[in-house]
Formats: sequence, C-alpha cells, structure tokens
Amino acid sequence: VRSFVVIGQRATASPGFLLDDLPGTSGRIDLLLRCVRSALLVSHGVRRDTRVYLVLLGGPDAPKSIRVDGSIAEFLRPDERSMATRVQKALSAELAEGWTALRHGWAVARGGVEVVLADLGGARRFVLDEGGRDVRSISVPAEVAFFVGDHTGIADLTVGADAVSIGPRSVHADDAIAIVHNELDRRAT
Amino acid sequence: VRSFVVIGQRATASPGFLLDDLPGTSGRIDLLLRCVRSALLVSHGVRRDTRVYLVLLGGPDAPKSIRVDGSIAEFLRPDERSMATRVQKALSAELAEGWTALRHGWAVARGGVEVVLADLGGARRFVLDEGGRDVRSISVPAEVAFFVGDHTGIADLTVGADAVSIGPRSVHADDAIAIVHNELDRRAT
Repeated sequence: VRSFVVIGQRATASPGFLLDDLPGTSGRIDLLLRCVRSALLVSHGVRRDTRVYLVLLGGPDAPKSIRVDGSIAEFLRPDERSMATRVQKALSAELAEGWTALRHGWAVARGGVEVVLADLGGARRFVLDEGGRDVRSISVPAEVAFFVGDHTGIADLTVGADAVSIGPRSVHADDAIAIVHNELDRRAT
Repeated sequence: VRSFVVIGQRATASPGFLLDDLPGTSGRIDLLLRCVRSALLVSHGVRRDTRVYLVLLGGPDAPKSIRVDGSIAEFLRPDERSMATRVQKALSAELAEGWTALRHGWAVARGGVEVVLADLGGARRFVLDEGGRDVRSISVPAEVAFFVGDHTGIADLTVGADAVSIGPRSVHADDAIAIVHNELDRRAT
C-alpha cells in the first residue's frame, strides 16, 4: 500500500467553511482536497493500492485526521467542490475512539500525526523535502508512506522519516504526489 | 517557452455554466481548469516560461480557445472556483479578429486547434499518448508544445506531433502536465 499523508498546519478541522470560498474560509483546505484527487484518482478509476490521509491542524476543533482508502473508495469525484462536501461530512461526524468509519471508504479520527502514524504500522516513511535524496534514486518498499506538507513544522512531526526530493522546482503538494506516483508506477511494471 | 494545449472535446465555449456545478454544467471544464493550475503555478509563484491553451469544442459558441501566458499572468489563484470565474470572464468577452487580450495575461480567440497552432509558431509539437515514446528518453527543444486531451479525436487534431508517453498508468491531464514539467525541470538545472 502507498500512503500519502498531507499535513495542513492551518487547514480547519471544523466543517463550517464555505463551499463558495474555500481558500478564504478553510485555512486552505482546497490544497488538501486537490491532494486527495491526485493521490487516488486516475483516468477512469481509483488507485486501489493507495490511501491518503489529511491531517487538519487548524481551527477550534483541531486536531483531526481524515483517511480515504482507495481499496474501498466509491463515488469519488475529482472536482474540488464535491471533495469539499465529502470533507465537510467527515468533519461533521460524531467521533468514537480511534477511527470512525464513514461511508464510501472515508474515515475520521480525533488527533493529528500521531493517530496517522499508529495507523501506518510498519510502512517505511519518507518526507518530501527539497533537500532530500532524489526519488528516482531511492529504494521504495511495497508498504510506504510519503509525508507532504507546508514547509513549517513538518520536520518535527515526521521523526524517523527519510527526506526525499522530487526535483529542482518546489511544486504544489498535489503535483508532488502525482510525480511520486509516476516514479513508483514505472517501477511496478 | 513550454506550451501545454488542453483539448476539451465537450468543454463549453459559452460562459453560462454554474460555478456550483462545474462538472455537470460545463462539459467537464473543471478538468481544464485544473490543467491551468498544474501548468502555470508552482509553490509561491508562476512559471514565467510557460503558456497554457484551453481549446473548447463544446456548446453552441464553440470553438473558442483561451490562452494564459505565464510570462505576464497576474492574480492567478489555484482553486477551481476562481479559475472558473476567470474562464467565464474570458468567454463573455467581445471578440475581435485573432486573439483578444484580456487583463492579467489572459486572451481568447474564436477557433479551435488551428488558431492555437498558428500561435505556437515553430514550437516542436508532442502529443501525450500512452503508446508514445517515454518522455524521459526524448530530446526536447526550448520551444516546445505538448497537446493533452481526452482520447477521442486528439490524433486528428495534432498532425505532425510526435507521440510521447509519461508512464504506464493513464493519469488525469493535470497530473500528466505536472509529470512533464518535472522531467523538463530536471534537465534545466
């Protein structure tokens, strides 16, 4: 399983953001929604071997984490607005201990990176970082997790992860995920 | 200059689509909006060496083409809704002969691939195609244009272009653009 963990330092863990102004009302959750698309969707299908986690560290209800599991995901649409609706539903759910399973492959938990780390088990951890080793030159096991985030703070949250770089330009998180997938897809054939 | 030409066989050339239901009312223009983002935006900036063209072949006002020129683009935001608003404005503009320049680096023209081809001049043309040669193995000049589209019809529209593949999985157009950029970024350093 490939996992991508997207850290939103200011992304809201509360469902009260506006669909008509995502960037202005959600702590830039739009950026995280785009990562769900690039992590899970391909032409005419879902990557069944991939999971994506959104770690929401902003707003009064933080921290919360959302998991979308490609192996069971259904009705996943690529556009930001429908992704945002799904995230709002997840953030409105009543939470039990640990992960609360929702419909169609979504789940939500109270807690931040620590609950994601526990869920990842023994997966080898990498953190995307411009100063890291080239993704084209590293060895990647089948059980792997890539951490993606805004620059601030992610290092502290990912102790034990190896830094990996996807190239000389600093790109958006969703593009970085697409590039990592491409490198791993090439090896899988 | 790197150019990306995104062909929307059904994407509407009329501005009357709904911002609250882009996928359902625009002939999937949401897909093209995401390509503008991945073609032009990087972390904290715009790719000044890149242009993106949207070729809109759907609806009663078709064909029209939109150009966003990274060398002069301003106020470009990554979220789909703000991109959609910009496209609506472009499609509402009164059109002169040839390209009509709008504000902030946008332009629009009546016509489809033929007006884009004329604008590209001598740029070497490639078409993204799963059966093509690996992008990692091809030689790419500085003046280059990549055509991206839904599978149907694009071959007919891009006579004289070499087929190039980005990998073994068929991915969304915006991800394909991110992967091409990454390969070219690596060569530029």
